Amino acid sequence: MTGSGLQFVVEHAGIAVSAVTGVLAARGRRIDLFGVLVVALVTAFGGGTVRDVLVGDLPPVWLRVPDYLINVTLTAVAAFFIVRLRTPPRAVLLVADACALALFTMIGTRKGVALEFSASVAVLLGVITGVAGGILRDVLTGEVPLVFQPQIHLYATAALCGAVIYVGFHHAGVRETAATITGAALVLALRLAAIRWKLSLPIFEAK
Amino acid sequence: MTGSGLQFVVEHAGIAVSAVTGVLAARGRRIDLFGVLVVALVTAFGGGTVRDVLVGDLPPVWLRVPDYLINVTLTAVAAFFIVRLRTPPRAVLLVADACALALFTMIGTRKGVALEFSASVAVLLGVITGVAGGILRDVLTGEVPLVFQPQIHLYATAALCGAVIYVGFHHAGVRETAATITGAALVLALRLAAIRWKLSLPIFEAK
Amino acid sequence: MTGSGLQFVVEHAGIAVSAVTGVLAARGRRIDLFGVLVVALVTAFGGGTVRDVLVGDLPPVWLRVPDYLINVTLTAVAAFFIVRLRTPPRAVLLVADACALALFTMIGTRKGVALEFSASVAVLLGVITGVAGGILRDVLTGEVPLVFQPQIHLYATAALCGAVIYVGFHHAGVRETAATITGAALVLALRLAAIRWKLSLPIFEAK
Repeated sequence: MTGSGLQFVVEHAGIAVSAVTGVLAARGRRIDLFGVLVVALVTAFGGGTVRDVLVGDLPPVWLRVPDYLINVTLTAVAAFFIVRLRTPPRAVLLVADACALALFTMIGTRKGVALEFSASVAVLLGVITGVAGGILRDVLTGEVPLVFQPQIHLYATAALCGAVIYVGFHHAGVRETAATITGAALVLALRLAAIRWKLSLPIFEAK
Repeated sequence: MTGSGLQFVVEHAGIAVSAVTGVLAARGRRIDLFGVLVVALVTAFGGGTVRDVLVGDLPPVWLRVPDYLINVTLTAVAAFFIVRLRTPPRAVLLVADACALALFTMIGTRKGVALEFSASVAVLLGVITGVAGGILRDVLTGEVPLVFQPQIHLYATAALCGAVIYVGFHHAGVRETAATITGAALVLALRLAAIRWKLSLPIFEAK
Repeated sequence: MTGSGLQFVVEHAGIAVSAVTGVLAARGRRIDLFGVLVVALVTAFGGGTVRDVLVGDLPPVWLRVPDYLINVTLTAVAAFFIVRLRTPPRAVLLVADACALALFTMIGTRKGVALEFSASVAVLLGVITGVAGGILRDVLTGEVPLVFQPQIHLYATAALCGAVIYVGFHHAGVRETAATITGAALVLALRLAAIRWKLSLPIFEAK
């Protein structure tokens, strides 16, 4: 398998996992098959689309290449019927979702660097790409966004650390592939450690 | 009346009806006159604007031609005061709303085809144009979007079928006007039949 | 201090105040530090970003100049820790927020005029810039937007009047600086008078 063949597989796997988290968020809410499909699309493409709208790079890739659309549609419809029969083990999903977070964060950060934005903006674009899909998913289903909640341990913070490492390595002259793998591994490690040991940021509660 | 004169009338009628559904969604929610106006604007222009942002065709037409803005503002203010006196018969509104759905879906699909997107993307742009305004309206008023709910019978599905027919006819070489009228008629027929016989998609409920 | 030095100070003060209102909106909602930061960013940049997306002027200024991002981040983190210790007096915040509304409305209206949009669109862009950040903040935290609520006295209406005055003066040939100061003063005066005497628009309640 070539490098770009690998990227294709990884990218589509990330999108499919995001779509499944969208389907699961729609559970128990009297949302019909179409609504589930919209929530899945928004979750899978939301982060990248918000980023592309902000940087003015339109139309986004999922409108240019139909593959992505077909992937999410088939995944969401399959998940809709499968989840009604049997809920997947929570641990599998958490790990898969952490992989998708790591991947999307790296894609967004790399795009920010490639478009020659300043370091802080490239990091921000990475975090947006990683988490905005999930925020939009929760707004659509009427929830306070999950990534804001302390029991979702270090979700955005993990993305932030990975993006900072990538940008730092990039400015230090480290090769792209090495910087990407290190950044992605850091997101994944932080997120899994946070789930395992229930690490979290300070909470904001009323006195 | 010329063809473009007809289009002008139909388009403005569709926008006005959407604005009224926005006003009705704001009922009973302690929202003031300004809030009602915002909800009406978002409902009427939301679908087309999301589509235009995605395809990068900015600014949207309602920022370029003031007619649309004036239409929605006058309609919403009038509806605000009228609805406080007397609720319109529900059947009239449902039929008018189905007409607006048919119209917006065709406008969006045609734009997707005109911009030479692939068939699946043109269909998606049609559905987005048809339903996104209502989704944004419901997010603003704090509701799970109405089009996701099974008791709103085949709303987005009707739009989807109409868009597919239009794109199919277009690729088969059928004339634009014939394809548009067939597509719009299909949306309308499906939606009215769904209301009449309470047809719906499978629901997604927790076990 | 030069004129542009003054603009710099005023602009950053407005952004910082908006960020603080975002932090306060996140209080008591089990939102962690990262969530608070996102809500602050959306509140401070939301209005200008919605305007820039609509007119197609992308990327927005806060992606081009890192100063704005750094300002909001530091303000939000500081406010997060300070507000947990001690709540600021409500009167101070209301006045500061009214200043930010006046400022953002003028920035948006001036941009609309500079881009040669029609008078009604320039006014609309001013109002959007003034209020959209707060609407997005409330959508993210799961509230019916505050500016729609009658007990928030004449918020958007104040912005509307200021924007109309600016555009009127501009078309009458009044100098930019004079038109801006008059418009801003009108927004501020209306908003403060509305808070003091509890003025409001008609409410929309179910019969």
